Amino acid sequence: MQNLNIPVILGTARQGRQSEPVADHVVDVLKARGVITDLIDVADYALTATGEPGAGTNLDHYRELIAAADGIVIVAPEYNHGYPGELKLLLDADYQGYVRKPVAFVSVSSGLIGGTRVTEQLRLVTTALRMVPVAPAVHVTGVADALDDRGRFVENSLSDVLTTMLDEIEWYARVLSPGRAASE
Amino acid sequence: MQNLNIPVILGTARQGRQSEPVADHVVDVLKARGVITDLIDVADYALTATGEPGAGTNLDHYRELIAAADGIVIVAPEYNHGYPGELKLLLDADYQGYVRKPVAFVSVSSGLIGGTRVTEQLRLVTTALRMVPVAPAVHVTGVADALDDRGRFVENSLSDVLTTMLDEIEWYARVLSPGRAASE
Amino acid sequence: MQNLNIPVILGTARQGRQSEPVADHVVDVLKARGVITDLIDVADYALTATGEPGAGTNLDHYRELIAAADGIVIVAPEYNHGYPGELKLLLDADYQGYVRKPVAFVSVSSGLIGGTRVTEQLRLVTTALRMVPVAPAVHVTGVADALDDRGRFVENSLSDVLTTMLDEIEWYARVLSPGRAASE
Amino acid sequence: MQNLNIPVILGTARQGRQSEPVADHVVDVLKARGVITDLIDVADYALTATGEPGAGTNLDHYRELIAAADGIVIVAPEYNHGYPGELKLLLDADYQGYVRKPVAFVSVSSGLIGGTRVTEQLRLVTTALRMVPVAPAVHVTGVADALDDRGRFVENSLSDVLTTMLDEIEWYARVLSPGRAASE
Repeated sequence: MQNLNIPVILGTARQGRQSEPVADHVVDVLKARGVITDLIDVADYALTATGEPGAGTNLDHYRELIAAADGIVIVAPEYNHGYPGELKLLLDADYQGYVRKPVAFVSVSSGLIGGTRVTEQLRLVTTALRMVPVAPAVHVTGVADALDDRGRFVENSLSDVLTTMLDEIEWYARVLSPGRAASE
Repeated sequence: MQNLNIPVILGTARQGRQSEPVADHVVDVLKARGVITDLIDVADYALTATGEPGAGTNLDHYRELIAAADGIVIVAPEYNHGYPGELKLLLDADYQGYVRKPVAFVSVSSGLIGGTRVTEQLRLVTTALRMVPVAPAVHVTGVADALDDRGRFVENSLSDVLTTMLDEIEWYARVLSPGRAASE
Repeated sequence: MQNLNIPVILGTARQGRQSEPVADHVVDVLKARGVITDLIDVADYALTATGEPGAGTNLDHYRELIAAADGIVIVAPEYNHGYPGELKLLLDADYQGYVRKPVAFVSVSSGLIGGTRVTEQLRLVTTALRMVPVAPAVHVTGVADALDDRGRFVENSLSDVLTTMLDEIEWYARVLSPGRAASE
Repeated sequence: MQNLNIPVILGTARQGRQSEPVADHVVDVLKARGVITDLIDVADYALTATGEPGAGTNLDHYRELIAAADGIVIVAPEYNHGYPGELKLLLDADYQGYVRKPVAFVSVSSGLIGGTRVTEQLRLVTTALRMVPVAPAVHVTGVADALDDRGRFVENSLSDVLTTMLDEIEWYARVLSPGRAASE
C-alpha cells in the first residue's frame, strides 16, 4: 500500500495561539512516520458565516485536501468547553470529503485540566460528518511548558499517547481506504 | 420590579437562513409579554477568529447589550449536530456579561428531527460561561411550514412550549437579577 | 465472506418498556438480511453496581456474545436526556470485546421529540469503548403508534432510515472484521 | 435565613471505590461551613431497572432527602466517559424534588486526565431534571494520592476550587430557595 495522507488541521486563528507549535510537532511526527501531510490553518480561510466562502478564501483547495486525505488530525484549544468558531466554520464547509475516514484529536490547554470537553464535542460533530473518531486522544495541558526548544513534547508520556493515537488512526486509514475504494 | 430585558441572539449568518423569521417571532412574543428586547444578529459582527474584533465590528455594543440583559434567548440552527461557528465566535467575545443569568434555546431545523443536539452543546458552552440554561426548549422542525403568514407559529403546541420556556427564563431572571445586585 | 453477526441490545429493563417490540423488529430485519443476531436483554442481567456480576447473572455469556459479534445495534429509550442506568451497567461490564467494531443506535420515545440526546451520549461512551458509532441513526418517536400489528414500522420513512443505518453498520463490519483479523 | 441543606450523593457502588473518601471530605467541608448535609450512598439502593424500587430499597427516603434539599453535590467517577449506571438509576428515581435547585459536581479519577467528561454528561442530565448545574467543578485526578491521612485534599489548589464551587452552589441555594417558596 502506498503512503497514507493525513493532513493536520490547526483549529484556531486566535492571536498568540499556542496550538500552532503543537500542530507543527504533530506534522513533524507524521512525516517521520512516512505519512504524507499538510498543515491546514483555519487562519487562511477567514470565514464569517456558515455556507459562504468569504472574500479571498480558497475553500476549493480545502476540499481537495480533504478529498485526498485518508484521515485527519485536528489540533485545537478548548474555548468555554466548546470548539473554536473558526474551526466549525471550516469543518462545515465540506461534506463529501469526510465520509468513512478516521479523525483524531489533539487538544491544547494552558491549564492543568481542559481539552477533553472540546474533544467530546468534536467527536459528535465529526461523527455527523460521517467520520470515525478514534478513541485515543492527546490532551496537551500546561502548553507553555509542554514543548522543548526543538519543538518536541517534553514528557515522554505525551509522546507515547501521540504514538498510540497515530497508530490507531493509521490502522483505520489502512483498513478503511481500501474498503471505500472497493465500494465505489 | 421593572421590566425584564431579554435580548434574542440570531445565531446564524448563513445565506437564506430560516432562523430569522423564527427569531423575529420570539422578539414579538417577548414584547407582547412586556419584556424589553433586542435582536442581536450574528451577521452584524463578521468575526473571523476567536478573540479579535474584526474590521468594522461593534463588539463593544454587543458587550453592552449582554451586560444590560437579565437573560438571553438564543435562536439557532443545528449544523452537523453542533452550533454555527459564527455563533460561537460571538459568544466567546464576552465573559463578564453572562455571569449568573439564565439562557433559553430555540432550535430551528428543516427536517423532522434535529435541533436537540445543538441545544445540548450550547447548554454546555453557556454553563461554562456561567449562565443558567433553562430546561424547557423550543425545537422548531420543518421550519418551512412552521410559521403562518403573520409570522406566528402555526402549531399551538409549539406556542405552548415557547410560553413554558419564556415563563421559565422570566422566573429565573426575576429571581437571579436581585440576587446578583445584592451580591455586588 | 461468511454471514455477519450483529446482536441487538435491548437497553431498558423498565416495566412496560416500549423499546421491546422495536428491538424485536430490528432483530427480524437483521435476520431477513441474512445477518446472525441475538437479542441481548439488559433485564436478564440485573446488575446493581459497576464492576460486579450480581447474583445469578451471566456476564460471561454477555462477553462471549460481544466477542463473537462483528458489530452491535443498541435499542434504547432516553431517560432525562441520558441513557438508562441498567444499559450503562451492562456496557461497562466488558472491555476487550468491543474494540474496533461498529455500533448503531435506535432510540425510542413516546413523544414527538427525543431520543437524539441519548444517542449522542451513547456515541461518546461507545467511542470510549473503542467502537465505531455509525452516523445514520433511527429515532422512533410516538412509539405507541410506530409499529403495525405485525410488529413492523408503519412509516416507510422510518424503515428507510433503518435500512440506511443497517447498510452502514454492515459496511463497517465487512471492512473492519478482516482488518482486525489481519492485525492479530 | 436558616442553614442550607445540601446532601452529597456518592455516585458509585463499585467495590473498592475511591470516590468514598472524597465524598466524606466534601461532607466534612460542608459541615464546617454550617451547611446541613447527608451522605446519600447509591450502594444503599441496589436498583436494577429504571422505574422500579428494587427489593429492600428505600426510595421514599431518597425522595424525602431530595425534597428537603436546597441543592445537591454529586461525587462520581467517570466510567468510559460516562456516568456510573447505578448513579443514573438513582437520579431517574425522582422528579419533583430536583426542580430549580442547584447541583455541583466532584469527579474522581485515578489517572491524570479524566472526570471532565462525566461532569459534562451529568450537567445535561441534571438540566433535564430542571436543576441548575453550577459552572465551577472539582476534578480529583490521581485520587490515590489526593487525600492526606486526615482525609483532606493534599493540594491547596484543589481545596480552593472546592471552596469556589461550594460558594457558587450556596449562592444559588440562597437565591433560588426563597424564589421557589415565593412561587408556591
